[in-house]
Amino acid sequence: MTVAYDGSGFRGFAAQRGQTTVAGSLAAALHAVVGHEVALTCAGRTDAGVHAAGQVVHFDVDPARARPQILGEGLDTAAIQRSCNRMLAPGIVVTEAAVAPPGFDARRSARWRRYRYLLLNREVPDPFLARTSWLVADELDLTAMQLSCDAVHGEHDFAAFCRRPPAPEATTVRRVLTAGWTRQPHIGPDVLAFEITATSFCHQMVRSLVGTMVDMGKGRLRAGEMAWILRAADRSLAGPPAPPHGLCLMEVGYPPEVLGSAR
Amino acid sequence: MTVAYDGSGFRGFAAQRGQTTVAGSLAAALHAVVGHEVALTCAGRTDAGVHAAGQVVHFDVDPARARPQILGEGLDTAAIQRSCNRMLAPGIVVTEAAVAPPGFDARRSARWRRYRYLLLNREVPDPFLARTSWLVADELDLTAMQLSCDAVHGEHDFAAFCRRPPAPEATTVRRVLTAGWTRQPHIGPDVLAFEITATSFCHQMVRSLVGTMVDMGKGRLRAGEMAWILRAADRSLAGPPAPPHGLCLMEVGYPPEVLGSAR
Repeated sequence: MTVAYDGSGFRGFAAQRGQTTVAGSLAAALHAVVGHEVALTCAGRTDAGVHAAGQVVHFDVDPARARPQILGEGLDTAAIQRSCNRMLAPGIVVTEAAVAPPGFDARRSARWRRYRYLLLNREVPDPFLARTSWLVADELDLTAMQLSCDAVHGEHDFAAFCRRPPAPEATTVRRVLTAGWTRQPHIGPDVLAFEITATSFCHQMVRSLVGTMVDMGKGRLRAGEMAWILRAADRSLAGPPAPPHGLCLMEVGYPPEVLGSAR
Repeated sequence: MTVAYDGSGFRGFAAQRGQTTVAGSLAAALHAVVGHEVALTCAGRTDAGVHAAGQVVHFDVDPARARPQILGEGLDTAAIQRSCNRMLAPGIVVTEAAVAPPGFDARRSARWRRYRYLLLNREVPDPFLARTSWLVADELDLTAMQLSCDAVHGEHDFAAFCRRPPAPEATTVRRVLTAGWTRQPHIGPDVLAFEITATSFCHQMVRSLVGTMVDMGKGRLRAGEMAWILRAADRSLAGPPAPPHGLCLMEVGYPPEVLGSAR
């Protein structure tokens, strides 16, 4: 299933006892719709406050225990989608639902994830962009921010931009496919967006990159220092992470041979 | 002052005892900032749930009672704007503040008001458009809706589209300057907008027009019936009013000679 959500109302994606989370809400709805408990696997575990336009999740349905209403000729994915949306929209919306090919795994089959970070660069706030963009009143040098992206492209150790110290055997090496800043006049006159596609991401990597690049836009750091911060792999050299509400998981990429006819 | 607000959190513009309203919140902030109570006059009293991107309000400041911090060389409107935004943003945002010319009245000096109604025309909701657009799942005939606008142009008695029966001496005649439906691909793939400019509006006039036009888009009414409904001036012939959260007061027009150098 492809899932969109407004992260404002949730303590992140991953289920946590006693907290309203995306996975918790979705699993509860699916339990009612499918007729048995399901275990959800997602492509990218978003943090509290982070949004998604194209999160991907998979789960297994046991035909022996499933409600007959969702088993027509094969699984009635349209009925599952409609029922979930009736229970969860507009906070969580299932935008697509399909039977996955054998062996498909929402996390392990993914080849890349694309995130977008929105920034409103002016002094006066906007009530309609407040939930989805970070208000930065200081003047920003967009050229410097754009320049700092060069060093991020390709395969690097992103330890300087990882919040959670990974397990000793885990790697913080990631491969960035595209990264860049653009103006977004169709969203609003002073809206900037950072879009980044990578094979996968460390914890808080996008927000740490944005925080550091905004420091470069303000002139606190020079754009040329990005390469050096990466090489030093020292978290204290990077800027503070940008707030979660500007971030959105836009899209997850799967190779055609894995997706099959599912999408 | 030009004021933008997300109507979701307010029981409309007009102050009501014991209710969170835009005027109530704004007047309380201005009382603290200006140093004395102020009486607010607005260009268009929006209903509960209705948004504004360009509401205009005016109030009088008494130099003898005002806080010295806001009186520099004349009135420090930038300081008033900043202080209001610090107290009220992002729900209410003052986007412009200026000293009005003598005799200016936010309501009576206005020559026209422009409203926009957003509609998301598809089955699947969108978490990011849910607060500002009406979800209509039925297929809509946009050509019929566009056609129905012809009859609305010009001066008409809009009694069929007025919710509140006006005072016996009050008129329900209004002059519509522009009215039309457009696709809004820059907002989203299935977003439609109805934009209407008129000298002034009856109560719930835009929402009643949208509700009636959507009935025409669904084929429940024919577009040609719009002229007849207007002439009959019978509210029972019009469609049900569209919900408030799709509506936004976009802009208020003042003649240059009234505005002077204020904007």
